[in-house]
Amino acid sequence: MRVLITGAAGMVGRKLIARLAKDGTLRGQKIAALDLHDIVPPQAPVIEGVDVAIHTGDLAAAGATERLVASRPDVIFHLAGVVSGEAEANFDLGYRVNLDGTRALFDAVRLASYAPRVVFTSSIAVFGAPFPDVIPDEFHPTPLTSYGTQKLMGEALLADYTRRGFFDGIGIRLPTICVRPGKPNKAASGFFSGIIREPLSGQEAILPVSRSVVHTHASPRSAVNFLIHAAGIDGSTVGPRRNLTMPGVGVSVGQQIEALERVAGSRAVGLIREVPDDTIWAIVKGWPTRFEARRSRELGFTAETSFDEIIRVHIEDELDGKVAS
Amino acid sequence: MRVLITGAAGMVGRKLIARLAKDGTLRGQKIAALDLHDIVPPQAPVIEGVDVAIHTGDLAAAGATERLVASRPDVIFHLAGVVSGEAEANFDLGYRVNLDGTRALFDAVRLASYAPRVVFTSSIAVFGAPFPDVIPDEFHPTPLTSYGTQKLMGEALLADYTRRGFFDGIGIRLPTICVRPGKPNKAASGFFSGIIREPLSGQEAILPVSRSVVHTHASPRSAVNFLIHAAGIDGSTVGPRRNLTMPGVGVSVGQQIEALERVAGSRAVGLIREVPDDTIWAIVKGWPTRFEARRSRELGFTAETSFDEIIRVHIEDELDGKVAS
Repeated sequence: MRVLITGAAGMVGRKLIARLAKDGTLRGQKIAALDLHDIVPPQAPVIEGVDVAIHTGDLAAAGATERLVASRPDVIFHLAGVVSGEAEANFDLGYRVNLDGTRALFDAVRLASYAPRVVFTSSIAVFGAPFPDVIPDEFHPTPLTSYGTQKLMGEALLADYTRRGFFDGIGIRLPTICVRPGKPNKAASGFFSGIIREPLSGQEAILPVSRSVVHTHASPRSAVNFLIHAAGIDGSTVGPRRNLTMPGVGVSVGQQIEALERVAGSRAVGLIREVPDDTIWAIVKGWPTRFEARRSRELGFTAETSFDEIIRVHIEDELDGKVAS
Repeated sequence: MRVLITGAAGMVGRKLIARLAKDGTLRGQKIAALDLHDIVPPQAPVIEGVDVAIHTGDLAAAGATERLVASRPDVIFHLAGVVSGEAEANFDLGYRVNLDGTRALFDAVRLASYAPRVVFTSSIAVFGAPFPDVIPDEFHPTPLTSYGTQKLMGEALLADYTRRGFFDGIGIRLPTICVRPGKPNKAASGFFSGIIREPLSGQEAILPVSRSVVHTHASPRSAVNFLIHAAGIDGSTVGPRRNLTMPGVGVSVGQQIEALERVAGSRAVGLIREVPDDTIWAIVKGWPTRFEARRSRELGFTAETSFDEIIRVHIEDELDGKVAS
């Protein structure tokens, strides 16, 4: 079993690598080789008996993706991408990385003619307001950001390339991953994690939108579970609609804060400072709220069932079970 | 008023040119110049007082689209495309013309920084089975052909480029255009017209699918009406969802044949020969049936209201009102 991960230096990529290192297997087979790609060098894990190769550079550059698939990885996790805030700020970069890079990778796989499993991380940003109360699996994607547009185009390619037999693709629309560990990134969704992560570490956090904003979340641990499950799923059970909205916890920001109070007390909640930001609001107001995610649940994808659980996963996985007091 | 038409040598392109020549105006303004583009030289109409320029070549070739928009056309009708059967048979050609060509044109307009109206002909091929009985405007596009995938990606770009203010785009999802005049083309949908057109001219026609197949049609005259209406519509009334499913007549093949009998008699119907074709069936079975088309009707788009009317439009526009007897 040979595994390729693009975007391997990102948060989800690093957690996926750690999980693969721990499991030692994927799809029930021993992992023999890991190819890791990112624009910056991903950290090479030391895993006994596994050949690890590090690749860096621009996926859209001539020849880059051909080199990545030359070793014919059995499973390709395509996580690479410019995040929403950056794709909105830099039009050319977003299209180059998120669309051209994805297409270049898919075309390299097509031309290698060996039909591996490709798992592509799409996003609920493919959806755009207005929405029904709960968004069904059959609801049309009408993105309101360039990032969402690029992800939608990647989904369309994935479905067509799968239909044509070039590879066996599964697109997973990730909800917002929360609580993101570490420093904030440029994603407009950063505050959803910040208002939990910072107070749990005794730091002040900025809330740039109203508490009434409803959004769907899953933990980084769930994101990795989605990826592993998508790698192992029997493609013939999925049918031609290859892009699946993942399950998650749909809550308002107010409910997030109530969960924080239940898990970590009122002192943590007191560290949240409301500073409205019109730029973030302009992006967030077009984002989806709650999802049915019926198909993905039927296909065996699972996530947390409450925001309290999402906070506890963060405390377990990132804080050694400890909360600042 | 300067107008650019890509795909100007195609059936819809030629009819649009004839209509513009007859009207002499678009959006209430006198047409001063017509730029016509296609891969083969479109026929130059002679219109008094209108400068007509003919452009030929591959839209995706370097510099081609920059040259087309250098004269800053006020309205761009982007009709160019490889049809469904051909895009399915020739993967590279389909993506090059339908995706890369469209993106190149949109990017040339973006870089010219003057935000014209762009009317893009998409297709109901963006939808893929299974469907509800009547497909609502909010139903998700899940194409089952490469052609439909390419059109969906064009729609996504159109919406994002419009949102960004690069141009003011309207995407119109054409139903199957019926009755197509002239010879059959490579579209898998060709028989929908053939079974009407050939008998009306005293010729035999092949029906390659079951009479129970339901599909939505509009006449070439309606297609031109959609384009003219889309050019004139106030973009601010459309909102961010720029791609509209056009109205049409949803009927079974059996109902088409009944209409033919009502309009032209049983002798015409006797010229239809049923010869099932699995290749055509494999494509057609994934196609949509009936549409709600609520938004487009509310925005003032109109089509025929019966298949009898579609046949009569063909007899008026193509046969000088005469049917072979």
